[in-house]
Amino acid sequence: MVLFGDVRFFDTTLRDGEQTPGVSLEPEEKVWIAKNLDSLGVDVIEAGSAITSEGERKGIKAVVKEGLKAEICSFARCLKTDVDYALECEVDSVHLVVSVSDLHINEKLKKDRETVKQMAVDMVEYAKRHGLIVELSGEDASRADLDYLASLYKAGVDAGADRLCFCDTVGVLRPEMTYDIFSKLSSGLKAPISIHCHDDLGLATANTVAALRGGAAQAHVTINGIGERAGNTALEEVVMVLKSLYGVNTKIVTENLYPTSKLVSRLMGIPLAPNKSLVGDNAFMHESGIHTHGLMANTMTYEPITPEIIGRKRQIVLGKHAGRTSVAMALREIGLVATDKQLDEITRQIKDLGDKGKKVTDADLMSIADSVLGIKTEARIKLIDCTVLSGNRATPTASVKVMIDDEEIVESGVGLGPVDAALNALRKSVMGVADLKLDEYRVEAITGGTDAIVEVWVKMSRDTQVISARGAGPDIIMASVQAFVEGMNRLIQEKNGISKAR
Amino acid sequence: MVLFGDVRFFDTTLRDGEQTPGVSLEPEEKVWIAKNLDSLGVDVIEAGSAITSEGERKGIKAVVKEGLKAEICSFARCLKTDVDYALECEVDSVHLVVSVSDLHINEKLKKDRETVKQMAVDMVEYAKRHGLIVELSGEDASRADLDYLASLYKAGVDAGADRLCFCDTVGVLRPEMTYDIFSKLSSGLKAPISIHCHDDLGLATANTVAALRGGAAQAHVTINGIGERAGNTALEEVVMVLKSLYGVNTKIVTENLYPTSKLVSRLMGIPLAPNKSLVGDNAFMHESGIHTHGLMANTMTYEPITPEIIGRKRQIVLGKHAGRTSVAMALREIGLVATDKQLDEITRQIKDLGDKGKKVTDADLMSIADSVLGIKTEARIKLIDCTVLSGNRATPTASVKVMIDDEEIVESGVGLGPVDAALNALRKSVMGVADLKLDEYRVEAITGGTDAIVEVWVKMSRDTQVISARGAGPDIIMASVQAFVEGMNRLIQEKNGISKAR
Repeated sequence: MVLFGDVRFFDTTLRDGEQTPGVSLEPEEKVWIAKNLDSLGVDVIEAGSAITSEGERKGIKAVVKEGLKAEICSFARCLKTDVDYALECEVDSVHLVVSVSDLHINEKLKKDRETVKQMAVDMVEYAKRHGLIVELSGEDASRADLDYLASLYKAGVDAGADRLCFCDTVGVLRPEMTYDIFSKLSSGLKAPISIHCHDDLGLATANTVAALRGGAAQAHVTINGIGERAGNTALEEVVMVLKSLYGVNTKIVTENLYPTSKLVSRLMGIPLAPNKSLVGDNAFMHESGIHTHGLMANTMTYEPITPEIIGRKRQIVLGKHAGRTSVAMALREIGLVATDKQLDEITRQIKDLGDKGKKVTDADLMSIADSVLGIKTEARIKLIDCTVLSGNRATPTASVKVMIDDEEIVESGVGLGPVDAALNALRKSVMGVADLKLDEYRVEAITGGTDAIVEVWVKMSRDTQVISARGAGPDIIMASVQAFVEGMNRLIQEKNGISKAR
Repeated sequence: MVLFGDVRFFDTTLRDGEQTPGVSLEPEEKVWIAKNLDSLGVDVIEAGSAITSEGERKGIKAVVKEGLKAEICSFARCLKTDVDYALECEVDSVHLVVSVSDLHINEKLKKDRETVKQMAVDMVEYAKRHGLIVELSGEDASRADLDYLASLYKAGVDAGADRLCFCDTVGVLRPEMTYDIFSKLSSGLKAPISIHCHDDLGLATANTVAALRGGAAQAHVTINGIGERAGNTALEEVVMVLKSLYGVNTKIVTENLYPTSKLVSRLMGIPLAPNKSLVGDNAFMHESGIHTHGLMANTMTYEPITPEIIGRKRQIVLGKHAGRTSVAMALREIGLVATDKQLDEITRQIKDLGDKGKKVTDADLMSIADSVLGIKTEARIKLIDCTVLSGNRATPTASVKVMIDDEEIVESGVGLGPVDAALNALRKSVMGVADLKLDEYRVEAITGGTDAIVEVWVKMSRDTQVISARGAGPDIIMASVQAFVEGMNRLIQEKNGISKAR
């Protein structure tokens, strides 16, 4: 078994992550994320780069004020102004970065190796004199002359640096090479060394783990692997690789990984790909078919870890690969039992819908089941008329006329926008029958033109019942209304219609 | 230097990728993607799993009909029905999958090792008798007994299998272990072996490359790394790791990587994270600041490869890290020159906007520059009134009243939805002044409730001029109108206003 030391995590979500173009957090948002990182158990929180702007310093100061367990750090170049701004923010430490490759030294800084080494030494001494913990970081270390790098690290430690860092600034490390470098490097150093990787070629996690195997003491990571360009090493991946593939438990509270991921994605406005490992929407979602057969026998057949370990749940959805077993299971969940022949027919219709590229919603499943099982399927609520008016000088207003059973009801509503107004009017129209809640409203990103088809998803509830429904069309208002009416019918029918019909 | 053989690519975008829940392609879409994969230079295209459904078979048959250079393959379990459906589709080959771990054999199949081996042998013989190329694949090989696996592979080759495959079904391989396994395994086999990885823990690319180093002849990959759960190994990552880190050129036409990635993402409806390596929106985007300084000296300082190699372009955007150099550069691009003092002020205002978490659009830059440089900034087009009506029985209709210079213009428009109608009316209202085009309309995904703030981006053009602008608010129609009016003003001002003022 490979031996790892006591792995430390240096979280740079609030610095590297926030360097994502177009991302900037309000001080309160930085604090929210910092508190979550602290509860997650990271050792260091790099709260930002104090030199950047007044707003950035406000955020860093707000994080410092929280008095968290984690060490609070600011990024700083080897310049006095950078360190002075960090001091103004009263951080515990600086991540003091100096270029170490000839490419960066000659072309970016237009200096030479010895001058740069002296800059590093001077600034380590300056920061230490002012009481800061110093992590001296070699930028572009993976393309640097390793002898020069070692001599710079040694000079830095002699000047008082507490920790060192090796930056793979453009993501060009390879795992086997990283292991070799760290095996050689770490034994000769008198201070612990960190690994800081970028994911330009998709190897950040593998390289980070290889460095830790080779003797690195600390991993620089971000939640969701966010950061400039292709981002940095994902915290959640390193933690779970160590835990599940190497049997190494860290101080990270793994059950907090998923909630923290969602918080960061939402506050920073950086969406996750559905297939992002561990924290993407699909990471523990299974479309029923051959795999659910195995999953039902033993979830380990198609999952490397159980989702609960990282604070989330497994989801099984129906689609074109749907099999009889999983359709039967889904029917049971909505209180329906079908004969073998009916089950075949329902499965066939679900596969057809899946073939059309649709996710099968609860409403779809019920509608198919109802027609196959011969349950009275006429919708109790019918939309007769819906008119919506909006404008820069108008309060968004909607009127609806619906038939509920045999009664005609006309209602109106206002809202913050036309969709809000229309759904408010609809909700009011069924108040006499049921008190429905809209729990979630989602529209996939619209790209292309204003004539693009918009797909709307709603999650609605009535007491303890929850249902999802869908609407689509070029008009976002009407697509939303369609989804809402479908959801209303299902929520009402399930409680009244179906139970009456059986 | 490590030696690789002639690396082959087995693309499974249309099978593993299409097993993403909720994804299903029309036959024409499958063909589009297959043609692109063929131009990209992959060796094998797994076009689907013939057993799945009638729709799936239509798609596979359509791909076969194209007569592409690549070998066309269908997935098949070791069942006669699966192979028969593959034969019906007239594919060249089957990816014949058999469970090889005791976990899968005992718990999923409820069989024993010998029975499973015999199933594999029988089905290889059956498929070979019917003229198929056979790639015999061990499902869950990474958790299998390696001696049993080797004996099953040998039996398969003796029965006629042309190629073998090692599946890391739940993504639990580690790179160093993968290299060891393949170094031992591949030398003892009489047929070339593939590596098929999943990205559950973020190691798919590293494991795939390790297997190729260890002697695997072929990599199973998907475009963008899509697939069930966390997806499969990303083709683009493996190709570029081999090329740029190991100096291994493959047959893949790298310039086609980015266009193919965009096509797959769009047709399958699977969005990419902005920080996805190589093909994500941000992978070659730099927010100006310290890094652009280095980039301007030499792009290699902050990029591992030049974006043109994969068919895309570098983007530099302004934000809170903006520096004077890059602001001056951006101003030059829109024909403005500022004094040092003015430049400081413009940079400060851009940083302020960035601090608020905003991407700085062209319209923002111009508006700031105009006010600092004292250029007459009064908008030529003012929106006085905009009213929009939509409904299930109404043609979406909008009226607008705008002041253009001193003239009041009233126009109306209809559209497929209310946004479409409003922008049509606006476009008509300025026809007398300029013929403007809406090139792109984008709305970020809306999640939460119907009262969420919607952010709208537009890209508009007039002749050869292109501009971006933004609008935001809880009403999607008014946010769209705001963005469009801002864009209209900028396009008109730039040609007339500014040139007049200077």
